Amino acid sequence: METINNAIEKIAPLDTEAMDEAKKRQDSLTKPRESLGVLEELSIRVAGITGNRRPKILQKTVITMAADHGVTELGVSAYPREVTLQMVLNILSGGAGINVLARHVGASLVVVDMGVARNLPDDPRLLNRKVALGTKNMTCEPAMTRQEAIKSIETGIEIVEEEIKNGLNIVGTGDMGIGNTTPAAAITSVITGISPFEATGRGTGIDTEAFERKVNAIENALSLNNPDPEDGFDVLSKVGGFEIGGIAGVIIGAAANRVPVVVDGYISGAAALIASQIAPQCRDYIFASHLSVEKGHKAVLNHLKLKPVLDLNLRLGEGTGAVIAISLIDAACKVLDEMATFSEAGVSEKGK
Amino acid sequence: METINNAIEKIAPLDTEAMDEAKKRQDSLTKPRESLGVLEELSIRVAGITGNRRPKILQKTVITMAADHGVTELGVSAYPREVTLQMVLNILSGGAGINVLARHVGASLVVVDMGVARNLPDDPRLLNRKVALGTKNMTCEPAMTRQEAIKSIETGIEIVEEEIKNGLNIVGTGDMGIGNTTPAAAITSVITGISPFEATGRGTGIDTEAFERKVNAIENALSLNNPDPEDGFDVLSKVGGFEIGGIAGVIIGAAANRVPVVVDGYISGAAALIASQIAPQCRDYIFASHLSVEKGHKAVLNHLKLKPVLDLNLRLGEGTGAVIAISLIDAACKVLDEMATFSEAGVSEKGK
Repeated sequence: METINNAIEKIAPLDTEAMDEAKKRQDSLTKPRESLGVLEELSIRVAGITGNRRPKILQKTVITMAADHGVTELGVSAYPREVTLQMVLNILSGGAGINVLARHVGASLVVVDMGVARNLPDDPRLLNRKVALGTKNMTCEPAMTRQEAIKSIETGIEIVEEEIKNGLNIVGTGDMGIGNTTPAAAITSVITGISPFEATGRGTGIDTEAFERKVNAIENALSLNNPDPEDGFDVLSKVGGFEIGGIAGVIIGAAANRVPVVVDGYISGAAALIASQIAPQCRDYIFASHLSVEKGHKAVLNHLKLKPVLDLNLRLGEGTGAVIAISLIDAACKVLDEMATFSEAGVSEKGK
Repeated sequence: METINNAIEKIAPLDTEAMDEAKKRQDSLTKPRESLGVLEELSIRVAGITGNRRPKILQKTVITMAADHGVTELGVSAYPREVTLQMVLNILSGGAGINVLARHVGASLVVVDMGVARNLPDDPRLLNRKVALGTKNMTCEPAMTRQEAIKSIETGIEIVEEEIKNGLNIVGTGDMGIGNTTPAAAITSVITGISPFEATGRGTGIDTEAFERKVNAIENALSLNNPDPEDGFDVLSKVGGFEIGGIAGVIIGAAANRVPVVVDGYISGAAALIASQIAPQCRDYIFASHLSVEKGHKAVLNHLKLKPVLDLNLRLGEGTGAVIAISLIDAACKVLDEMATFSEAGVSEKGK
C-alpha cells in the first residue's frame, strides 16, 4: 500500500495561476475569443495539470494492459478467451488497431501482461507484470484477493512512473481482455448506482441470449460478493480485473506526477471510477477521450463529471479512442503555444 | 462556363464495388465488426470516392480562400474590414490557427486572394485570383454579377485541379473574410428554407444590436434581390461572396476528379449548398468536418444529408475544422490498409 499512499499524497490541485495565464494568452491570439472551443479548454486544463502556462506535449505514450477474466466460462463474450493472448501477440507484431493509430499520431505503445490466463513468450516489447493467470469467476467467488487488487494498482503506478522518468508527458490508457465489459459493467453498476441491465452493452457483439447471461452474471456476482461502493479496493477485488486495476494505477500515478491522463472507453472508464473512489483528487487530471457505444459509459462519464472529446461510435478498446484524443490535446497545446497574438501579427482587435 | 460544365460532366457516382471490397476488408480485420465506428465508415466512403479499395492519403492540402464583403459597411461584424487583409498576412507568416493545425497534421496550405478589398503585396505563397475588390453591399444591389459568380467558381475548380496535378489526394476547404457569416446565413436561408433569424449566429462575437442589424441586412438583401433557390449561380451572385464561390468550385473540382473534399464550418457549408445546387452529384464527395457553433450550420448539414465528424464548438473558420477531420480520415484509411486480418494474425474469429 505504500506506493499507493505515496501517490495519493502527491496529488495536488490544478495550478489555477497557470490556467489563468493560459486563458489570458488564448484570448490574445489572432482569432475571435473562444472560437477554437474545446481545443482552448483542453489546452487550459493541460496548463493547470502541468503547472506550465504554455505546455508542450513532447512524448505521447499509450499503456495497453491485458488480462483474462474467469467469468468468460459463462459465455459472456462473442470471442473465445484465447483471443486475449492472440491479440497481445497481434499488438506486439504491430497489426492491431492501436498500433495503426499510435503510429498515426506519433505515440509510443507500452504493452503489459497484467494477468493473461496463459504464459506469453518472452518479448522485449512486452512488460510481464502478471498478477495471476486471469481472475476467478466472480459469480462463484471474488474475482481476486484484496492483496491482488492492491498489487494491480501498484503495478500501474510503477509502470507509469517509469515511463514518466523516460520522458512521457501525456499518457493514454488502453485494455485488451476478452470478457472485460462484464467486470466494467459490474463496477459501473456498483459505483454509479445504475442497474446491471442499464450498465450492460453488447461488448464485442453478443446475441440476445448471451446478453441475458451477461446481465445475470453481473447480478449474481453483485449479490454474492456485495462490494462496498465506497471502497475502490473492495469493488476491484470482488468484480474487477487485473488490467482494470492496472489502468486505475496508471491514472493515480499520472495524477501524482502532474501528467495528463487520457482514458479510453468503457473499460478504462471503469478503472477511472475505481481510481476516483481511491483518490478523488485524480479526477482533475483525467481527459475522457470519447463516448463509447457501450451504453453504461455515459453513466461513468456523468459520475466522473467528464465530457468526452470525441463521439465516433467506437467500441474497440486497446486505447484506440485515447490515442486519437491525445493528438487533439497535442494540437490544442500547439495552438496555445504557436499562434501569433494580435499585437505580434499587427491584426486589429475587436471593435467597440 | 466551359470549365464548370466540363467538371460537372466528369462527376461520376461512387464506386460501389470498391466500397463493398473495403467493407469486406474492414470486417476481416482483427477487431469486432464495426467496432471502429465512424472511422470504418470514413474509410469505406474514401474507397468509393477514389475507386480504390485500400486508398492511401498521400498528400493533404487545405485551400483557404479570402475575400471581403460590401455588407460590412452596415456593421454586421465585430471586427473591422481591414482584418481580412491583416489575417491573410498572418496566415502567410504562419501565425494563424490554420497554420498551427495544418503543421500538426502534416497538411500543406494554399492561400488564395479571391477578392480582398485592398491589394495584397506580391508573395510567392499567395495565389492572387482576385475577382474584384470585395463584393458590393447586398442590401443595395447584388453582391456580384453573374459573370463574377461563374468566374469565382471556375477559379476554385482551376486551383484544385492544379493541386491535384501536383499530387494532392484529399482537400480541405477554408475561408477568411470579415463579415462572411452574413452571406453564409443568407445563402442558407435561401437554399434550406429556414428564416434569416434562424440562419444567423453571433459570428466572431457580435452584441445583440449588431445581431439585429445582421438579421435585418439579410432580410433586406433577400427581399431586394429575390434570389432563385434552384439556381446556385443566382444565389451566389446576389447574396454570396468570392471566397464562397471559390470554395464551391473547389468542391465541384474535387468531385470531378474523384478526390475527397472535407468542408470546414458554416462558410464552407454555404459554399457546399451552392455547389450542390449546381452539381447535385458532388454531395457524395463531401465530408462535413465538424458542427459549427453558428446555429444555421445544422440546417446546412441536414440539407446536404451530411453527418459531421467532430463537434468541438469551433467557429473560427480558415479550414481549422477541416484539417482536423482530414487527419481522422487519414487515420481511417490507415486502419483499413495497415491492420492485420484475423487469418494473417492467427486470431480466432467470433464464436457461434
